[in-house]
Amino acid sequence: MAPPHFLLAPPVVLWSHLSASARPIHGLVLLQGGEEKTRYCTDHLELFRQESYFAYLFGVREPGFYGAIDIASGQSILFAPRLPADYAVWMGEIKPLSYFRDTYKVDMVFYVDEIAQVVQDRFGDHGKPLLFVLHGRNTDSGNFSKPASFEGIEKFDTDLSTLHPILTECRVIKSDLELALIQYANDVSSEAHIEVMRRARPGMKEYQLESIFLHHVYMYGGCRHCSYTCICATGDNSAVLHYGHVAAPNDRTLNDGDIALMDMGAEYHFYGSDITCSYPINGKFNSSQIVIYNAVLKAHNAVISHMRSGVNWMDMHKLAERAILESLRKEQILQGDVDDMIAQRLGAVFMPHGLGHLLGIDTHDPGGYPEGLERPKDPGLSSLRTTRELKEGMVITVEPGCYFIDALLTKAREDPISSKFFNWQEVEKYKSFGGVRIESDVYVTAQGCRNLTNCPRETWEIEAVMAGAPWPLPASSSMAAAAENSNGISKAL
Amino acid sequence: MAPPHFLLAPPVVLWSHLSASARPIHGLVLLQGGEEKTRYCTDHLELFRQESYFAYLFGVREPGFYGAIDIASGQSILFAPRLPADYAVWMGEIKPLSYFRDTYKVDMVFYVDEIAQVVQDRFGDHGKPLLFVLHGRNTDSGNFSKPASFEGIEKFDTDLSTLHPILTECRVIKSDLELALIQYANDVSSEAHIEVMRRARPGMKEYQLESIFLHHVYMYGGCRHCSYTCICATGDNSAVLHYGHVAAPNDRTLNDGDIALMDMGAEYHFYGSDITCSYPINGKFNSSQIVIYNAVLKAHNAVISHMRSGVNWMDMHKLAERAILESLRKEQILQGDVDDMIAQRLGAVFMPHGLGHLLGIDTHDPGGYPEGLERPKDPGLSSLRTTRELKEGMVITVEPGCYFIDALLTKAREDPISSKFFNWQEVEKYKSFGGVRIESDVYVTAQGCRNLTNCPRETWEIEAVMAGAPWPLPASSSMAAAAENSNGISKAL
Repeated sequence: MAPPHFLLAPPVVLWSHLSASARPIHGLVLLQGGEEKTRYCTDHLELFRQESYFAYLFGVREPGFYGAIDIASGQSILFAPRLPADYAVWMGEIKPLSYFRDTYKVDMVFYVDEIAQVVQDRFGDHGKPLLFVLHGRNTDSGNFSKPASFEGIEKFDTDLSTLHPILTECRVIKSDLELALIQYANDVSSEAHIEVMRRARPGMKEYQLESIFLHHVYMYGGCRHCSYTCICATGDNSAVLHYGHVAAPNDRTLNDGDIALMDMGAEYHFYGSDITCSYPINGKFNSSQIVIYNAVLKAHNAVISHMRSGVNWMDMHKLAERAILESLRKEQILQGDVDDMIAQRLGAVFMPHGLGHLLGIDTHDPGGYPEGLERPKDPGLSSLRTTRELKEGMVITVEPGCYFIDALLTKAREDPISSKFFNWQEVEKYKSFGGVRIESDVYVTAQGCRNLTNCPRETWEIEAVMAGAPWPLPASSSMAAAAENSNGISKAL
Repeated sequence: MAPPHFLLAPPVVLWSHLSASARPIHGLVLLQGGEEKTRYCTDHLELFRQESYFAYLFGVREPGFYGAIDIASGQSILFAPRLPADYAVWMGEIKPLSYFRDTYKVDMVFYVDEIAQVVQDRFGDHGKPLLFVLHGRNTDSGNFSKPASFEGIEKFDTDLSTLHPILTECRVIKSDLELALIQYANDVSSEAHIEVMRRARPGMKEYQLESIFLHHVYMYGGCRHCSYTCICATGDNSAVLHYGHVAAPNDRTLNDGDIALMDMGAEYHFYGSDITCSYPINGKFNSSQIVIYNAVLKAHNAVISHMRSGVNWMDMHKLAERAILESLRKEQILQGDVDDMIAQRLGAVFMPHGLGHLLGIDTHDPGGYPEGLERPKDPGLSSLRTTRELKEGMVITVEPGCYFIDALLTKAREDPISSKFFNWQEVEKYKSFGGVRIESDVYVTAQGCRNLTNCPRETWEIEAVMAGAPWPLPASSSMAAAAENSNGISKAL
């Protein structure tokens, strides 16, 4: 599998957006790239990862850059840091400006300490040039992007409000080149997930599964970064949505009978993947694992079969909830009318997170709530990172889940209206079950969508792959297994 | 290899230091632990790593803590963050305060929002309690540690100057428990280096060697962090001292005939290792590789054989320089008197970095230049991270190197006094050689020292291990190889 070997020129779409706006076009878009950071007071350098908006517009990997786009002409300019002579001894070759021009396909390159002069020289004839800098709120974190700042910026007028919504909206719709990178990250990560499921065994530690994944994507895919800290949850940890961080560091020992919920995704040239596979550690689904797994798979497949440009994402979330609640009702874990359950927000007891999020240079890619779109307040729905109508060119994760979370079940039990929907005797059987999540990255088209993730999803596919079968399964064995398994399921149910 | 399973109680040594000082003992040492950070404006959480002084005193892995030590009694107190109820859904179990008391072996645990009240209640009877907070300069980065701050701190007197030098000096001398952790990190990393050298082949990418290392230390050693970004330099990249960062990201293809310089070390429960192995990618040293490698090995071994409590580190640096310069003179790469070369600072042309640095919770552990000790100004010596007298209990890296760095050789050639020491025709042969570094982590004792690193170091040992021999080599094969190789060397020279 060869990675896509190209670099991204500044998207034409931004330039056309800005020059088409009512604003004066006598000016520059100016972005400041990320700076290398040391850990606390020490000289320990963290491995640098470029700021995402800067990566989007300029594709520059190195720290300390600025970049500009002339709105009138669409010309792009990079400003590189001027490195001290001893950089060559400690850090490596000091590359000439032409290297950055050729590598990042911009029109011009200057040094950072020349920004004010270059801007003045290019635009001074027509009065004070206007700099469009990036300032706006990330709707997932609530944090604001830091607008570019340089020595001499006070000589120019700056516009803080125009750029952020435009650039964010550009990032929502993926170009073919962007899609190729996301597909590559998905290909590498899908393979790595399969490697992990094949090697998982009772007695191992969760972090060993993380290590296998990280090694596979770096060794064979060249992915030095992952999109996020690996979530390698087994047993009841699989009911912790964001497991894997330092206070819950993938350190449990795997047991026979455990479910595993592996949420891991590699990043390649800034673009990420975000994939979850759930399966039994011992390679064979038991009856309760089949019940919950198939409930989630049904939701996953129902959503994907309905996705297309124009569909509303909140409707997809509710569709997933309905599929899960119906399955739980069929299993007599729940009782009563499913519409009533949805109105009562019972879906959020089993799936407290949103169905999915935009994916790109950030795992939670921005643009989920553009100006004017309000975040819902109801349980479950309030966790949605977007409630937009799907558009052609979006990449969004589809990640329904069903979890048995003590805190939420206790709350539901204490509520007299919610409580009556539950068959608490049945629920009790799933007390330490944990949870299941199935997550794919999906590209939206005009007529439907395309699943970029390629992992075994049916229970029999997973069992076959864990038993050593190649993936994809050979067509014949796949059909035979499907036939056998559909019997198996009927028996188990 | 089982990791040492213990946690560190706050060192008694700090308490005795402080209570023996002339300062009033009516007060508390108060440290603030690190906070989790998001990447730029996004909600992407970086994997948290505790601030090192806080890790040293309290061993707490999680973010958001404060810790205090009552100077009079030596009692220790942790302050844990009060987590919101939905933490249980997203991040995992909300642990009771008793969990932290038992895990981190402190006397008391309260919530962070109780700090002011707790301090007031414990010390209010005797007037305003004095808080010793951490404020001081890291002599490697030049950055200052951030003193603890909490709501209500203005009610108390704070002392900013006393604690930092005392705590830093505590960190310089390792306890047995600390040493066990550093030894474990060394054991895991030494093994991983051997795995890498066994699997290195022409045609691979440098980052694949990094991936093998990272996987080995995590999969088999449980080391989630490394002490620093892996330096996997081959060919002329091996002349770049801090190769491997984002602008030089271990992305070269390995060639037959290349030298490899692998500088990688894992961290376990905060404590690090820092190990460099240099070897030929094809498994067989060629004649110029033998020359440079043995020059560096001689320096490495000479230093270790001289190290003991009381020896000055600058003298060790010069000893290493002398060994390298003598070897280069013997090979007619240099000419003239070695004392004159040292006076002319020719050692810094071939080894521009310092001989080594204190190692512990930070790779460049603090304490290298305590108050009153000035950093030297001469080339090479100015790079020394310490010029102290060695003390029993220090752990320090011994990492001589010999590099052919264009920028430095050009400068030496242009200097009429330096230039005459070089046989430029010979130097030319090493133009694209790169460099060799050999680095071990060494524990200083009263009578000598102990090398904590266990990698093949002699050329024949490396060749045998790369050809598949077990490590350590069986005694018989080792002696045979030594005999054979000493002939080989004579011929090659």
